[in-house]
Amino acid sequence: METKYMTLNQERNVSLTAYLQKTGSEFTNISARPAVLILPGGGYQICSEREMDPAAMAYLKAGYQAFILRYSLGEHAVWPNPLKDYEQAMRMIREHAEEWGICRDKIAVIGFSAGGHLAACAASMSENRPDAAILGYPVITEESAHVWERTAPDAAKAVDRNTCPCFVFATRTDSTVPVKNSLRFIQALEEHNISFESHIYAYGPHGFSTADASVLDPQMPVCGRVHRWVADSIGWLKEMLGDFGPDGITKPLCKRWANGNSADYLSVDCTIGYLMQNRQARPLLGGMMGSAGKQEASGMGSSMSQEGMEVMMQSMTLREALQYGQVPAETIELLQGKLARIENRQNGLLR
Amino acid sequence: METKYMTLNQERNVSLTAYLQKTGSEFTNISARPAVLILPGGGYQICSEREMDPAAMAYLKAGYQAFILRYSLGEHAVWPNPLKDYEQAMRMIREHAEEWGICRDKIAVIGFSAGGHLAACAASMSENRPDAAILGYPVITEESAHVWERTAPDAAKAVDRNTCPCFVFATRTDSTVPVKNSLRFIQALEEHNISFESHIYAYGPHGFSTADASVLDPQMPVCGRVHRWVADSIGWLKEMLGDFGPDGITKPLCKRWANGNSADYLSVDCTIGYLMQNRQARPLLGGMMGSAGKQEASGMGSSMSQEGMEVMMQSMTLREALQYGQVPAETIELLQGKLARIENRQNGLLR
Amino acid sequence: METKYMTLNQERNVSLTAYLQKTGSEFTNISARPAVLILPGGGYQICSEREMDPAAMAYLKAGYQAFILRYSLGEHAVWPNPLKDYEQAMRMIREHAEEWGICRDKIAVIGFSAGGHLAACAASMSENRPDAAILGYPVITEESAHVWERTAPDAAKAVDRNTCPCFVFATRTDSTVPVKNSLRFIQALEEHNISFESHIYAYGPHGFSTADASVLDPQMPVCGRVHRWVADSIGWLKEMLGDFGPDGITKPLCKRWANGNSADYLSVDCTIGYLMQNRQARPLLGGMMGSAGKQEASGMGSSMSQEGMEVMMQSMTLREALQYGQVPAETIELLQGKLARIENRQNGLLR
Amino acid sequence: METKYMTLNQERNVSLTAYLQKTGSEFTNISARPAVLILPGGGYQICSEREMDPAAMAYLKAGYQAFILRYSLGEHAVWPNPLKDYEQAMRMIREHAEEWGICRDKIAVIGFSAGGHLAACAASMSENRPDAAILGYPVITEESAHVWERTAPDAAKAVDRNTCPCFVFATRTDSTVPVKNSLRFIQALEEHNISFESHIYAYGPHGFSTADASVLDPQMPVCGRVHRWVADSIGWLKEMLGDFGPDGITKPLCKRWANGNSADYLSVDCTIGYLMQNRQARPLLGGMMGSAGKQEASGMGSSMSQEGMEVMMQSMTLREALQYGQVPAETIELLQGKLARIENRQNGLLR
Repeated sequence: METKYMTLNQERNVSLTAYLQKTGSEFTNISARPAVLILPGGGYQICSEREMDPAAMAYLKAGYQAFILRYSLGEHAVWPNPLKDYEQAMRMIREHAEEWGICRDKIAVIGFSAGGHLAACAASMSENRPDAAILGYPVITEESAHVWERTAPDAAKAVDRNTCPCFVFATRTDSTVPVKNSLRFIQALEEHNISFESHIYAYGPHGFSTADASVLDPQMPVCGRVHRWVADSIGWLKEMLGDFGPDGITKPLCKRWANGNSADYLSVDCTIGYLMQNRQARPLLGGMMGSAGKQEASGMGSSMSQEGMEVMMQSMTLREALQYGQVPAETIELLQGKLARIENRQNGLLR
Repeated sequence: METKYMTLNQERNVSLTAYLQKTGSEFTNISARPAVLILPGGGYQICSEREMDPAAMAYLKAGYQAFILRYSLGEHAVWPNPLKDYEQAMRMIREHAEEWGICRDKIAVIGFSAGGHLAACAASMSENRPDAAILGYPVITEESAHVWERTAPDAAKAVDRNTCPCFVFATRTDSTVPVKNSLRFIQALEEHNISFESHIYAYGPHGFSTADASVLDPQMPVCGRVHRWVADSIGWLKEMLGDFGPDGITKPLCKRWANGNSADYLSVDCTIGYLMQNRQARPLLGGMMGSAGKQEASGMGSSMSQEGMEVMMQSMTLREALQYGQVPAETIELLQGKLARIENRQNGLLR
Repeated sequence: METKYMTLNQERNVSLTAYLQKTGSEFTNISARPAVLILPGGGYQICSEREMDPAAMAYLKAGYQAFILRYSLGEHAVWPNPLKDYEQAMRMIREHAEEWGICRDKIAVIGFSAGGHLAACAASMSENRPDAAILGYPVITEESAHVWERTAPDAAKAVDRNTCPCFVFATRTDSTVPVKNSLRFIQALEEHNISFESHIYAYGPHGFSTADASVLDPQMPVCGRVHRWVADSIGWLKEMLGDFGPDGITKPLCKRWANGNSADYLSVDCTIGYLMQNRQARPLLGGMMGSAGKQEASGMGSSMSQEGMEVMMQSMTLREALQYGQVPAETIELLQGKLARIENRQNGLLR
Repeated sequence: METKYMTLNQERNVSLTAYLQKTGSEFTNISARPAVLILPGGGYQICSEREMDPAAMAYLKAGYQAFILRYSLGEHAVWPNPLKDYEQAMRMIREHAEEWGICRDKIAVIGFSAGGHLAACAASMSENRPDAAILGYPVITEESAHVWERTAPDAAKAVDRNTCPCFVFATRTDSTVPVKNSLRFIQALEEHNISFESHIYAYGPHGFSTADASVLDPQMPVCGRVHRWVADSIGWLKEMLGDFGPDGITKPLCKRWANGNSADYLSVDCTIGYLMQNRQARPLLGGMMGSAGKQEASGMGSSMSQEGMEVMMQSMTLREALQYGQVPAETIELLQGKLARIENRQNGLLR
């Protein structure tokens, strides 16, 4: 493994450390690797070493390239300096993707606490969006952000349809950065149809990093699941970005939006409620819905109300409803072909 | 293991099945066991067998007694019939606690989907509150509840300070009962200071039960962490209610409220912000806060603002601040003694 | 779940308890379930309740049917009474397979301690062999068996080519039934080409059952991996017997013999060393071996000795060598077709 | 993290790579770290990169320092060159322990395949013994070793009472290095009273390294538990060498010998059989054994034979028997005081 240390901004003391693993040769099926860019926490006052290497090692072991950004702190942390540092780092990584053995479109940002605030801003308001974001006990709301840096923005309010999928974890009893921060962010993700996974553990202190005994005071009361976020976030990344396969990286198993309503063109992965509002799509659904609905209702017993059924089907995707109604795959593909030609104009207006 | 089948309400076809394990004899240290009461899902139209025994077995294996309630369905599901069924079952279990080898104050309710709605109502609005609740892809909001049963209430709106600790899990992409339901509920728990743990998995269908291949169609796309909720909920129950120890059940590791602000009397586990609003408590804190504050600030570097520090300390508990400031344990105990004599009058008014 | 209690032998106080789960209806893809037959331990003096239900529940949760055999004890334990009890139980289960919703050829025996001795005997010397055996801290050697029952045979010496695949676990520091017992058994399995998995954990007491706090004195020093055998044995059973799939039980992933040398006919899964000893098979291998060998050697660098290479290839299967040498799949199939016609006469003589 | 590259022997192309993490400062309770020395595999022809960094990262994440030794290969691999390389590396690490932030007596060696042979030799015949050894699908027997290097010794035959505790893992179906190698080694460890843990997984290819998708061809059939050895070996190391605690490394939970029979002086951790053979110890045991025996027998029911009981107690430690007989702790301590003064003369003769 090769280590590189790069100064990004001498005046503000910003630097990027790279841990780069080989590609090719004995790693026959690996011509490029996904990467993580780690943003340690420390209240925009320090960058905690407990949230650098211990986290990087886990992703390196899983085959990723790893970067650590020491961003602007203290007096230099005035907004948008830290975000500029991120933009510079991400640009540099993407520019050197080939040289450094990196998949340009498989770069996740990982941030803890104040670094989680920066990572959430990267995910929701940067020009160089990451492809996934892992947020550990992040600072999100303006109220919490201002505790540490008076100029820092609210990250939840910035969430838009281009926000990348997020993995959010925290403890319920965190009193340094209250759990409300994480809840507020996943709520914003839900409202914007963004894919996410979140784990709120019952109890434990702020700043637990990987929860290994070597980084967390072992006398600190912490619930037994906390350390799981490391392996779980790797499992999630592999589902979101693809995994190492015999012929390079495999296809992702999970899409960036919870359903197709946010894509540029319509599809059978849009919800029925959304499609029915579209003048071009509505006639295509036609009679199909009737039979699928009856099938569904009968599965649940005869007494489910017609109104209930209709409300429920609003949030189902067309694909789900058709599969439930045992509509043949070819018919679904035919319909998909037609829908895929309809531009999703309401997109920008989505909630 | 003994199996009992009890009819609770012949007219509405309500019944309670009990799986009861031995106490004493070879289980020398077990005179009574914690218990779970399972409320299967099925849209208030059926009670799904896929959410009965497979779930019960996991808790039985961990040493719990297990009950399954077949509550009022279809035309009988008009509110508050299902909740009455729950009340009757819980009353019966507590009345027979000694006979059936059960710890009267360690009974958790587990509900899936519509059963999760009923469990959430049990947790937040019943007369016979459970001691913990595990909610799987629950129906929560009025909007979702009315899809299945037009008279069912919104469970999140009912959350109060007596709501029991909750473990909530769901998948992000559930289109039958949208994830918004789970999010709304944990938000209500957060607002009322209730302990909780929550796991929102990236993707997977509604109604996955234990996610074992024997209950979930193995072709269904589902993310790799989903099956974890079973073991995780058991770990959580042991932290909330205590575990089997050499001399009976051990002391819980996690409290029912995230901090002491909701208890009947003040304590060092109240947040500093809360204590400072109390005329009797404020003078007791006095000079202590100053030194703890300085300590904290210096840990983060000298540039953290005084205002930021003060806002952050509002949400810390007094115990945390004092421990961080390395105040001796005896001094903390002395303070605790004094605070414990002050009635927590604002309690009823707590949002 | 239905519970049945059947007396098998009134005089010797032998009984069989059945826990039977439903098939069909909501479990649409399940017309029959694999099963486990549990043989609790207790030195042929008692049948420990700590090794009955807690173990049964784990397999029930995974979708299996479960049986518990209370076999002959004390004065009735004189050999072969306990083995006769097993034979009677297994015969009964197979005879009622259809009625009880069981896959007749997917029945595993699970034994602990003295019950592990009985399970090992069932695996290696019974008339009604199980399809897999899980042996927990088993008594194996004559020396150990005679501690408990003077007439009990050595189970390792009985291992033959028809012994079923085994999963063996124990702790290194067990002083009641020394770990030598488990080692002796897996050595016998290795010598007879039988598939197995084994986990010897660093330390822990005898008789830990599932290692749940409800069955194991929580003050007892026990290493952190011990409880894993439960989930691991279920994972192993699914690989050996198949798992629940959309159209019934899937094909096993692991074969009953470590290679094809023990089967009734030759195959490309026989080792090269074995095939080369066969007058009919040898000419079929011919030139192929040369090129595969050269390929293999070049992978390791040029300096590997010709003799070393030849010795190593003795233990490789023909399929492995051909795949390594990138011989096309069709060529391998062709060869398989020819080998499959050659009876494996040496079979009975195998070591 | 600092990376160092050191040439140990230019002529034979031997080098040591060090990955060194910080001690002190933010890692307040860490003044020195345990370490691992990794010996990659490759048939003494190459050193496989797939078994270097991916393995190192796992232990680094857990807080360990990590070293990788590129030892003598090909023509240079003639014995004892590779062992000399190991001795030189271990000596250098111990000499620089303070400078590099390492606990001098907590250094484990990790070897894979041929590197596993070298690690097993380090554990059993080196002058600079490691404190623990992790052996992955190791080459052990002379027969297997000679496949790769004709001068390499049999590692199992060298096992002595000073062999360090070992963690051994392999797959049952490994045809490159047959599982017999691992079995032979753990049998030798058992015979010499050495602590060990071993995991033989049902199936999988040779050389799976960490079994991450980035190092193992994901199309290769491999059983689901294989990847566990990484986390399990870390858990084991923590039990054998101690874990990070509030005041430095904690006390180990597991001893290097399975019982006290191999130590320099007698103790209550010796087996009763061993103590009874000692003329000085025997009188100290006296009447105690009688009552403990009766207690034990009555626990099992009255029919256990006196002879059986006596044989069983031979292999129990005195401490276990006394605790089982509920002898008070002070009496045990008194006895321990007396035994600890008796030199364990038979020691050198212990098989």
